Amino acid sequence: MKKVIGILVGSLRKESFSKKIAKALIAMAPEDFEFKIIPLDNLPIYNQDFDDFNNVPESYIEFRESIKAIDGVIFVTPEYNRSVPAVLKNALDVGSRPKGKNAWSGKPAAIFSNSPGNISGFGANHHLRQSLVFLNLPTMQQPEVYITKANELFDEKSDIKESRTKDFLQNAVNAYIVWFNKNAVAKPQTLSVLI
Amino acid sequence: MKKVIGILVGSLRKESFSKKIAKALIAMAPEDFEFKIIPLDNLPIYNQDFDDFNNVPESYIEFRESIKAIDGVIFVTPEYNRSVPAVLKNALDVGSRPKGKNAWSGKPAAIFSNSPGNISGFGANHHLRQSLVFLNLPTMQQPEVYITKANELFDEKSDIKESRTKDFLQNAVNAYIVWFNKNAVAKPQTLSVLI
Repeated sequence: MKKVIGILVGSLRKESFSKKIAKALIAMAPEDFEFKIIPLDNLPIYNQDFDDFNNVPESYIEFRESIKAIDGVIFVTPEYNRSVPAVLKNALDVGSRPKGKNAWSGKPAAIFSNSPGNISGFGANHHLRQSLVFLNLPTMQQPEVYITKANELFDEKSDIKESRTKDFLQNAVNAYIVWFNKNAVAKPQTLSVLI
Repeated sequence: MKKVIGILVGSLRKESFSKKIAKALIAMAPEDFEFKIIPLDNLPIYNQDFDDFNNVPESYIEFRESIKAIDGVIFVTPEYNRSVPAVLKNALDVGSRPKGKNAWSGKPAAIFSNSPGNISGFGANHHLRQSLVFLNLPTMQQPEVYITKANELFDEKSDIKESRTKDFLQNAVNAYIVWFNKNAVAKPQTLSVLI
């Protein structure tokens, strides 16, 4: 069975560069992997009162199930105000709750940050890493993936223009697969069969 | 005319410790200041497509006006997953846009972070600071305000129990007022009268 890697995109904008990068990555998955975008559009902002079983939004339940169902995570994100966009921080917060039910734990991760400017989303990339430590997602360290000039990467069909950009991304995907294979753990249901 | 300080609370929970701290601070304002909570409940997660004049949510317009109308900001926040709660990051993102219309710029700020545990929201406090640098809010450095054991501070009426806690917070408020008076700038409308 194929391993499934969820891609979480840190921008809701229709023509988002991060979305276009995510689509390019989907085509780069090795044949025993499936990469797919996990939608973040419908998650209300996290409120601890929603931890109450009688009060939990349907969209939270679906999102948590979708995270439990994936084997690994790739974050593709811009930077907002030198940090993580609210949409992505919210997804992390929702998936981490209620207490003791962190859906992220143990899933190997990678971060692809991007911006039109030179700093390439560095602030978002590293703030994200601090949360991923706490949430226990083993996160690929090298290669770090900082994508500059995100506004110049795509042609009119939203495809990547230059082969060196494709090579850079494919190399990062390949490294992530190696990282994934080293760090992936059997899912709890599989473990329970073993014990 | 009284100077108005907006308090932004990083938790939507009804019985939030941060809200209770915010209410305690309101009572500590000097007589020529008014402290008031700016509600963050109704802000949809920021999407750059909302920058389009025809597409902007009414709640964004109201929120940006409420930020332009205040003279300074106090953030009272818990930490979520070693970083800023999504509700507060979203408020920063919404107030910072559209490009060139940063509503936060120049407003003297302070951060009061808290948690039930010992780390006292340090991760949220300092991630917030990184965004405030970019958004140009001169932010009080000392005293840093880390509030521990937030779950033990209040009596059954949600009032602060111990006088040493009140003294600690009053001292921080007093220091913020000194910081505010040093760093406050005349508002643009006032400036335009001067030039």
